[in-house]
Amino acid sequence: MEDVKDVFVSPLPDSPYVKPFRLNFTQNGKEKNWDLLEVHDSVAIVVFNVTRKVMVFVKQFRPAIYYNAVAPEDRKSGTIDTQKYPASLGIALEMCAGIVDKNLPVENIAKEEVLEECGYDVPVKSLERITSYRSGVGVQGALQTFFYCEVTDDMKTESGGGVEDEIIDVVEMTIPEIEKYVSSPGPIPSPPSCLFALMWFLHYKADKYRKSYERTCRECKEVEKVFEKNI
Amino acid sequence: MEDVKDVFVSPLPDSPYVKPFRLNFTQNGKEKNWDLLEVHDSVAIVVFNVTRKVMVFVKQFRPAIYYNAVAPEDRKSGTIDTQKYPASLGIALEMCAGIVDKNLPVENIAKEEVLEECGYDVPVKSLERITSYRSGVGVQGALQTFFYCEVTDDMKTESGGGVEDEIIDVVEMTIPEIEKYVSSPGPIPSPPSCLFALMWFLHYKADKYRKSYERTCRECKEVEKVFEKNI
Repeated sequence: MEDVKDVFVSPLPDSPYVKPFRLNFTQNGKEKNWDLLEVHDSVAIVVFNVTRKVMVFVKQFRPAIYYNAVAPEDRKSGTIDTQKYPASLGIALEMCAGIVDKNLPVENIAKEEVLEECGYDVPVKSLERITSYRSGVGVQGALQTFFYCEVTDDMKTESGGGVEDEIIDVVEMTIPEIEKYVSSPGPIPSPPSCLFALMWFLHYKADKYRKSYERTCRECKEVEKVFEKNI
Repeated sequence: MEDVKDVFVSPLPDSPYVKPFRLNFTQNGKEKNWDLLEVHDSVAIVVFNVTRKVMVFVKQFRPAIYYNAVAPEDRKSGTIDTQKYPASLGIALEMCAGIVDKNLPVENIAKEEVLEECGYDVPVKSLERITSYRSGVGVQGALQTFFYCEVTDDMKTESGGGVEDEIIDVVEMTIPEIEKYVSSPGPIPSPPSCLFALMWFLHYKADKYRKSYERTCRECKEVEKVFEKNI
């Protein structure tokens, strides 16, 4: 994954991936415009393995992250020095995700991504649709639908790692590791959609998977659920 | 804000805002490329008014969100029917934020944005730097630094709303309203960075501002903090 060399910039040709255009409009009587990109809608899936109580992530080299780790003065020549800027600077940790490029329900697209990227063969009904939001507000505003999916070791039928040219590693984190990751001072090598998903999991789901015990107060009969700090 | 008409698409000229290019590289011996955008680093600030216990947001018309709310078949002609697609479809709710386009510490840029957009004049030292992360992993990977800032009604010295051409409304939400907002089935008209910030606040800060009382168990002497559900 980290064997990356011969890095250089060239002008954008007619690209199937990045289609920039200008949107013109009149707001409150004033002519304005805004430059945008045409981007596919997408799905993102928080995959939690309940057998071993670990979150399942994908890790890959992301040119967008690598390029932005290079100091502006070292971008000017158009060629990046991979001795000074090793490929590890471009490795991102993300939720399982994919674009909506087929005429299928988003649940089915999410199911395919969980299998292709993470190697778990999950029933469509196990995909819990949480919400959807705009992937950005600046140059792209496509919709991302966010799912939560609990998997077991039994469902792991393939190795994952993506299809065709994709070089993707599947990595796992325990709940304390997730807490440490989101509390790091940064730069965290993850996009905000991943951080939202992690905070959502910590806030709404994690307690269920921490080791807990109940304590009943003999005086007031109150039952209190106490979570162990380290699991 | 919502008086928007004469909406049409035109080709991207040489734009100061959107600078697309292609990054070429050789990974594991195979030549590859990826199309990217040059984007500024940025700051985002969770502004919480402790006088009235409300979160402070900015609301504005976002062409990227508006365009993506238009069905693909209704984009083809290049002209958008604003009767069928009212401007309200493009209104986004966001954290206070801004790009790093000055040679100043990010704390100072954050302070300026809180004043310009939200109208609060805050001391730089009140900006708590939480973390930083990549704004995306696809076509843009600029760094966003995330701050938390508590403000009081006394600090509100201006109306906010942005500078120059910006048309920005300042809006507020109580903690229960935030909980309802992030739990909606969507589409939520906010980017994932805003949702991350809200979940971060709910998980790490909100309890401090809920009405709470302490209950001591007479038998075991345990002190329990109990939060009222509705404040």
